[in-house]
Parts: sequence; structure tokens; C-alpha cells
Amino acid sequence: MNRYLPILNWGRQYRAAQFTDDLLAAVIVTVMLVPQSLAYALLAGLPPEMGLYASILPLMVYAVFGTSRSLSVGPVAVVSLMTAAAVARLELADAAQVIAASTLLAMMAGLFLVLLGLLRLGFLANFLSHPVIAGFITASGVIIALGQLPGILGIQAGGQTLLLLVPSLVAGLQSAAGSLNWPTITVGVGTLAYLLWAKRYLAALLVRFGLNQRLAVILSRLSPIVAVIATAVAAWSLDLGSRGLALVGDVPAGLPALSLPVMDSELWLALAGSAALIAILGFVESVSVAQGLAARRRERIDPDQELIGLGASNMAASFAGGFPVAGGFARSVVNFDAGAATPAAGLLAALLMGLATFFLMPLLAWLPKATLSATIISAVLSLVDFSIVKKAWQYSRADFLAVCSTILLTWLEGVEAGVAAGIIVSILVHMYKSSRPHVAIVGQVPGTEHYRNVERHEVITYDTILSLRVDESLYFANSRYLEDLIYREVAERPALQHVVLMCSAVNEIDLSALESLEAINSRLADNGIRLHLSEVKGPVMDALETTHFLQALSGQVYLSQHQAISDLQRSTAIATP
Amino acid sequence: MNRYLPILNWGRQYRAAQFTDDLLAAVIVTVMLVPQSLAYALLAGLPPEMGLYASILPLMVYAVFGTSRSLSVGPVAVVSLMTAAAVARLELADAAQVIAASTLLAMMAGLFLVLLGLLRLGFLANFLSHPVIAGFITASGVIIALGQLPGILGIQAGGQTLLLLVPSLVAGLQSAAGSLNWPTITVGVGTLAYLLWAKRYLAALLVRFGLNQRLAVILSRLSPIVAVIATAVAAWSLDLGSRGLALVGDVPAGLPALSLPVMDSELWLALAGSAALIAILGFVESVSVAQGLAARRRERIDPDQELIGLGASNMAASFAGGFPVAGGFARSVVNFDAGAATPAAGLLAALLMGLATFFLMPLLAWLPKATLSATIISAVLSLVDFSIVKKAWQYSRADFLAVCSTILLTWLEGVEAGVAAGIIVSILVHMYKSSRPHVAIVGQVPGTEHYRNVERHEVITYDTILSLRVDESLYFANSRYLEDLIYREVAERPALQHVVLMCSAVNEIDLSALESLEAINSRLADNGIRLHLSEVKGPVMDALETTHFLQALSGQVYLSQHQAISDLQRSTAIATP
Repeated sequence: MNRYLPILNWGRQYRAAQFTDDLLAAVIVTVMLVPQSLAYALLAGLPPEMGLYASILPLMVYAVFGTSRSLSVGPVAVVSLMTAAAVARLELADAAQVIAASTLLAMMAGLFLVLLGLLRLGFLANFLSHPVIAGFITASGVIIALGQLPGILGIQAGGQTLLLLVPSLVAGLQSAAGSLNWPTITVGVGTLAYLLWAKRYLAALLVRFGLNQRLAVILSRLSPIVAVIATAVAAWSLDLGSRGLALVGDVPAGLPALSLPVMDSELWLALAGSAALIAILGFVESVSVAQGLAARRRERIDPDQELIGLGASNMAASFAGGFPVAGGFARSVVNFDAGAATPAAGLLAALLMGLATFFLMPLLAWLPKATLSATIISAVLSLVDFSIVKKAWQYSRADFLAVCSTILLTWLEGVEAGVAAGIIVSILVHMYKSSRPHVAIVGQVPGTEHYRNVERHEVITYDTILSLRVDESLYFANSRYLEDLIYREVAERPALQHVVLMCSAVNEIDLSALESLEAINSRLADNGIRLHLSEVKGPVMDALETTHFLQALSGQVYLSQHQAISDLQRSTAIATP
Repeated sequence: MNRYLPILNWGRQYRAAQFTDDLLAAVIVTVMLVPQSLAYALLAGLPPEMGLYASILPLMVYAVFGTSRSLSVGPVAVVSLMTAAAVARLELADAAQVIAASTLLAMMAGLFLVLLGLLRLGFLANFLSHPVIAGFITASGVIIALGQLPGILGIQAGGQTLLLLVPSLVAGLQSAAGSLNWPTITVGVGTLAYLLWAKRYLAALLVRFGLNQRLAVILSRLSPIVAVIATAVAAWSLDLGSRGLALVGDVPAGLPALSLPVMDSELWLALAGSAALIAILGFVESVSVAQGLAARRRERIDPDQELIGLGASNMAASFAGGFPVAGGFARSVVNFDAGAATPAAGLLAALLMGLATFFLMPLLAWLPKATLSATIISAVLSLVDFSIVKKAWQYSRADFLAVCSTILLTWLEGVEAGVAAGIIVSILVHMYKSSRPHVAIVGQVPGTEHYRNVERHEVITYDTILSLRVDESLYFANSRYLEDLIYREVAERPALQHVVLMCSAVNEIDLSALESLEAINSRLADNGIRLHLSEVKGPVMDALETTHFLQALSGQVYLSQHQAISDLQRSTAIATP
């Protein structure tokens, strides 16, 4: 019970001092979350208030089921973009249908994560490698930032890929060239400039004004709410709405009643792939944020339970009329830095957000959409970091290929193709590498019991004995390669009587490889050559012992390579005096 | 040049003695191929004469480009079934369209193989593991055999999956219950009984009549042609066609002119996946047959060149109005046993088949389709072998899962789903296993320099030093698992000062794993623990040296685990007296 409800662990020892810390963190996080939630809803192609809906119940549910003490769950940039892309593909005409599909997506992603958690299948998330995620987030960041340019420039343009977006932006700029909407540009570009300036210099400025470092950093992170209030007041006082500035407009006050998503089997089928990708990407992001923060305090998180926590949060987002959520990096760091002691900080933030919803909704009418676009651009520019491409290039061509495929396909074909390409290329490249394993012909280092690669060391070898060390597990991807290699080496050595496979780096032999070994054994035997194994690991030997292979083996299994060579060398010397 | 045209190698040394051997083999293979080719065309849902078209030009082209001296290329059972399934999915109404699609499929499979060969991507074929292929062929064999029952029983039934086929067979039997067509049943069941009997007993009988063993075996393999002639004569003399026995009927004499397949982009797109599966399956089958036969004579084949050889054969099949081909097991073994010395045997067989086409076509009119169905059933029953299921169960649950998924999906969803399931499950299972690698905590075997698993041996360990041996390459699938495991072990050891990763079985560290190691290193350093590596392999060390990791490493890289422990034990002993 405690495993599936981590709240039972920390809740029972909750102390008053922790409450004070948590409340302070909650206030700060709430102030930061309001503009971010509104903005990411816009990014997801949804009415801004849905961002608030997605920020309340999921936070509370995560506090009950999650294992991280600092993770803050809610709308995040990349998942919002993926939601927009998934729903756009359905080509729904009606805004209500778009909302229904986004809400359904949260439910499906949530169910998928809970299922993975209950089945302990979290390992699937490993298929998204670090470099692929880094490349994907950078590529998405570029698309998101460009996609919000029309919002701050007051032009018409859009598209889910660079191929669509860039020409559309150019066309939008051209057609607006004579009739620029200066209120929009002023608010949009001005807000963006302010946010970028604040991110870089505000904290230092506040320190110079006498604030302590930590408070200065936290306050500087709240600059979006300042922009929201300032531009809303400006729009109201100068009546900028009537001068062409797009405002959020009237939204229903309070929260919608809890509801179930639409049950339309065709829609479920159409969204299944997207839901799985959103779920896995959101999960991987959340876990890496949570792990990073936990390690700073020598705490631990349980990745399998995180699947359930994040899954339940997404289902909660769906019930509450929101859209897919994940653990965000920026918001979690603010939560951590503001001193959140337990997940109760999330519960409190959710309550405060709920209150805010009632009072803020009427004020939202005056909020310029350009402010939200500027908030998004400022936030995602921190995500764009091309250094992964250089790092991958320097370290390995395989990783470079995976990163570049991810980035290019994200740009050219969209976010889902990008993630899928990253996963598929990583797997293909891994299989390619392990399908041609490093195999060394080894010989004895004179005067020792060590056996090393003949190409790297001066070693003793014999015409009658071929010793091969395979530096890879033997499995279906490389079993034929091994067969081929052995036949080739054997064909070149007419005096050969023994082949010794040194298995010190063989961690597994699957059934394909076993069949290859059987074939190798019998074909070598036909040619009068005996096959031996040495240094077979315990678990591999256990598996081999369940088969007839060891009885059929023409040679022996030696504990060490040295034993094998001494023994075979002696017997060969006797046989051919 | 010689690499891409193996004929230049053997052709230049061709001798008269080889010609005699090749000619004899060609005659025998031709006699065997005629009924088989007709039958497999029927299995592919095509007019029988297309089987002959697919048996002539491809054989000649393979003789030029292929590297196996014994492989006989032409229509084979499983590929024919896959062709039928791929084309059936298109739901074409017109027989001419079905023919065009099948011919196109051969062209696409051929292009795909040639492309793989030129790009040296033959490793992709490794994704089809031995057990998956064995399971797939067995499952397909069952479907093929059941699918031909209507042919020998004279009832109406059909379907590409067991779910469709079995109910259809039951319904067909019920509706035909009162009105059985006895000529069809007699010819069909009689031929089948004869063929099964001949396969089992004819060779022994011939030996008893004084023939030598080899000749008896070869003659017994030719029993299908006896059945073809006998039943055609019976159909003609007794005029069974007018009594309800389905005959092949008039077919155009001679060969069609060479032609290009239809260039319809929609059709190409619809068939692309099927073509790739057919190509890979045909290739894997051909290579394993060719490798088996080559090894018997201490010869070698070149798998990359085989891609080109088989690809060119498929393109030739398409030009000649045939359908996808592969290297067949039965026909290649007959070719080998009949003494084929060089690929010229294939060239000669092709010429004989071409001649036969002119003379046989008019006679085919009287050939009962039931005879061909019986030939197919008899041939595929040899392919059905469920022992792989038992073997996989005994050896490893992972392989068992892959085999069972393949068989079940082949039966329930069809051949393409079956192959795809086999590939995907194999990869998933492999990734699952390597995502939770075997990690042993190791200690020193007293009095030696060996370090072994603390759970399997009595060894010396220290409170201040944790030594872990990871029995797997470190890559994206397991890098997070390693992080998690190390943090867990560290959290349990308050006195810990050093972690030593023993990398003797780590054959690769990819960029994901490198980033994990960087994270582990810095988090351990935050907690005052140093990270060391030992026994890092040459290629892995080379890669690490291109990065900043070794500079950032809080500890050292030791050549041997024993050096690491001696050194750390000494320094710790000094530090904490």
C-alpha cells in the first residue's frame, strides 16, 4: 500500500516547520505558474483557461502518488506542442472537438503510463536516449519559438513543421508589411525584450539593490507575472483591444465540473500513437528532472512509481478539463529553490491556483495574447541548445546520426516523426554496432597467464590453435556474423586443430547464437577441428547446461583461457611430435 | 569487378568434367522444378505458367551474380504465400491487376535487396533471428497446408489467416457434404497419399530393387513429376475435366516478352512494406541454405554479394513476368546432391526449363489443379516442425516469447504481422534484457588477484570501497538503470569513500551512458565519494579520451581491478587510521 501511495510515507511525519517552507514555495510557484499555464494552453492551440485547469488537480494527484519531493507537474512546452501537433493531424473543424481531443489525449497518456507502471515496463522509456531527447527538445524549441513569432508581431502564420512554418512566416510578414499593428508589436516585442533582459540581468540588479542572492533569483524568475499584469493594465487603460491588439477575452470564471473524456473508438485509435509518444516523452523528462533534484538532497525517486504518479496526474488533467501534463524543469527548479520540503507544497500550490482561478478569470479578459507568446518564446529559448550536436559528433558517429535524424525529422516532418526517428535510429544503430562485434584473435603475453589481442601486443600463438575473444554478447543480431568470421579464419589456417572461444565478455547467448554455435561446432568437427570454450560466465553456463550443446561440443569448456591453451598445447604436442 | 560478378571467378576456370556434372544436376533439377514451379504459382494465387517464368531468367541471373555454387533460385513456398497475402490485401478485382501487382512485388523486393547489398546493409537481415524464422516457417506451413485442402477435396474455401481459413473450411465441407466431387478427391487425396508415401519409403524400396543409395534418393525426390504425368494422363484419358475435376486449362505456349512492371506510385507505396518483408525473409532463407551447403564442401559464400545476387534474380523474375523468388531448400539440396559443381548447373537448368516450357505448355491443359495442391501440401509438411517451441521454452523465456508471438500472429493476423511481430518482439526482449544488466558486487578471492561476485564466492570486501562489475555494454537502454542502482547501493553504505566500476565486460559506452557516468561522477563527488574505473577495454578507453570525462573524473582509471583495490585500500587506511 505504501508503495503505491507515497503520501502515506511523508504524510505521517509531516511537521509544522515543513508547512511553513511548503507554503512559501507554493506561493512563489503559483505566481510563476499562472502566466506559464495560460501560455502553454495557447501553445497547445487551446483556450488559455485550460492551462489553469491542467495545473490544479494534476498537482494534487501527483502529491498523493508521486515520489519526488520537488517535481512540479503541469503544462510544459514540449508536451503542449506535441498535443497541438497530434490534434492538428485530426483536422477537426470545431473548437469544441479540439478541446475534447486534447482532453482525451491526457486521459490516454495517463492510462498508458499507469499501465506501464503497474506492469513495471518503465524500461521502455529507456528507448529515448539522452542525446535524442536533447536533440528533440532543441528542435522543438526552435519550432515553438518561430511558431509564436506571429503572436508577437501581429501577423497571420502557422504550421507544425519548419517546411510549413517558415514560408508561412515570410508570406505573413510580406502581406502585413504595409499595415503593421503597432500596439501588438510594442506589447509583444517589448515583453519579450523585458523577459530576456530579466532572465539575464534582473537577479544581479536586485542583489545590487541589497536583496540576498536567493531571493533575487526567485524574484527574477517571477518576471512573467509582472509582464502579465503590466500589459493587461496597459491594454485596459489604453483600450488597446479596439486598436487591434488581440486579447484573451472573456473566459468562464471558476472551474468546470469534473467530466469524463469522449468515448469515441475512432478517435481513441487515431490518437493512440500520439498519446504513447506524449506519455513516454513526458515521463522521461519528468524523471530526469526529478532525479536531478532528488540527488541534490541525497533522496531517491522510484521510476516505476513515477509512471503511476505522472499517469494519475494526466488522468486528473483530463477529468478537470485540461490537457497532457508533465513535470516541468523550470517550475520544479523554482519549487526546489523556493524551499519546498514535501509534496505538500504541490497541494498548497494547487489550492492557491484554484483560488486564483476565481479571482483572475475576469481580469484575463484584458490580457494581450502577445504577452503570452512572448512568455513562451522566452521560456523555450532556454531549451534550445545545439551543443549536443557537437558533443555527439566528437564522441561517436552513431550518436551523431541519432541526434541529427531526430532534429531534422522534427523540423521537416513534425514532433512525432522526430521522436519516432530518434527511437528507431538509436535502436538500429545499436543493433548495427552489436551485429559486427569486436572480435580479437588473442595470444599469451609471454611469462604471464594473460591473453591479449595479437594486433595490440607481442604474444605467443600456435598454428594448431586459434583463440578468439568475442567482445559482445552473442545474440541474434551477431550470431551469423560470428559464424561467417570463424569460417573465414578457419579457411585461412590449414594446420588448425582447435578453436577456442574466449567468452569473458559474453554476457548472454540467446537461442539464435546457440544454434550458430551448434552449426559452428558440427561444421568444424566435419573438418577435424575441435571447438572449445573458455571463461564462460556463470549465468551463461547455467543456460547452456539446460541444452544438449555441451554434450555435442567436440571440445571442452575451460575455466580459464590459460588452462585451455596449456592443455591443448600439451595434447597437440603429443599428437604431432 | 570480380566482387560484383562472381561468374568471372569460376567461369574462367570452367572445365569439361564440371560440365558433365552440371548437366546431370540440371536435368534432375529441371524435372523436379517443373511441378514445383507450377504449384507455387498456384499458391501465390497466380496462373501456373507464371511459376515457370519465375524459374528461368532468375536462375540464369543468379548464376552470374550469386556466390553459392549450389543454391537454386525460384518460387518457394513461404515467399509465394507472402506474395499472395500482400496482393490479397490490395483487394484487386481483376486477375490482370493481381498479376501486375505480383510482378511489381518481385521488382520492388529485388531493388530493395540490391540497394541493401550496395550499401552493405546486410546486417538488417540479422533482425530475423533463427527461432523467429523457424516459428514463422512452421506457422506458414500450417496455413499453406490447410489452404490447399479445398484444392484436394474439391470444396470452396479460403483465407489468409487461421481465423478466416478454419471456419471457411468447415463451412465448405458442410455445404459440399451431399455433393462430393469424387474425381477431385480421388486425384487430390490419392496424389497426396502417394507423395507422402514416396517421401518416406520410395528411396528404400528402390535400394531394395538394386539401385545405389544416391540414385535412389534422387529418384525418390522426383516423384512429383510422376504424379503430374500420371494424373494428367488420367484426366485426359478418362475426360475427368467434364466430371468436375478442375484442370489448369489452356495456357499460352512459350515465354512472354520481357517487360517492365507497372509504374503506379500508389501501388508502389501500398506494396513497399510487403516487398521489404518478402525480400528480407527470402534473403535470410537463401543465405542459410547457401551457407549450409557451402560449409559441407569447405566453400564460403559472401552474404553481401548474395543480396545483390538474389536482388538481381528478383528483378529478373519481374522482367520475365514472374513473381518473387528465393533460394529454395529442397531444390538446392537436390541440386547439391545431384552433383552440381558450379553455378553453370543453374544456367543449364534454366535452358532446359525454357525448352520444357515450349513443349509442356499444351500438355498443362490436362493437369488437374488437385495434383498441384497435393504437391504443395506434401512439400510444406516438411517445413512444419514445432520442436522449436519446445527448444525455446527450455532454453530461454525470451526466445519462447518471440517464437510464440510469431506463430500466433502469423496464424491470427497473417504472414506479414507474424514476421513483423517476430522482429519487434526479438528487439524488445533483447532491449529489455540488456536494460537490466547483470551487475555483481565483487570482492577479492583471498590470496589471489581475482575479483568475484560476493554472492557466489567467499571474498574480501571493505566498508569504504564498493566494487561493481557490470556485465553488459553501457548504452542508452541501461544507462538510467545503472545510475539508479549506484545511487541505491551508495545510499545503503554510510562509510563509503570509493566506488570502482569494473568494466571488463563493457564493450561500449555510448553518449547516453557517458552522460550517466558524468552525472554519477558529479553526484558522488557532491557526497564526498570518488568514482574509479578499472579494466577499461582499449576501444572504450579510446572513445573516453576524446571527451572531458576523464579530466572530470573524481577518481582514477586503473588497468586492473587488483591495482585499484590495493591502491585505494592503502590510501584509505592512511586517511582513516
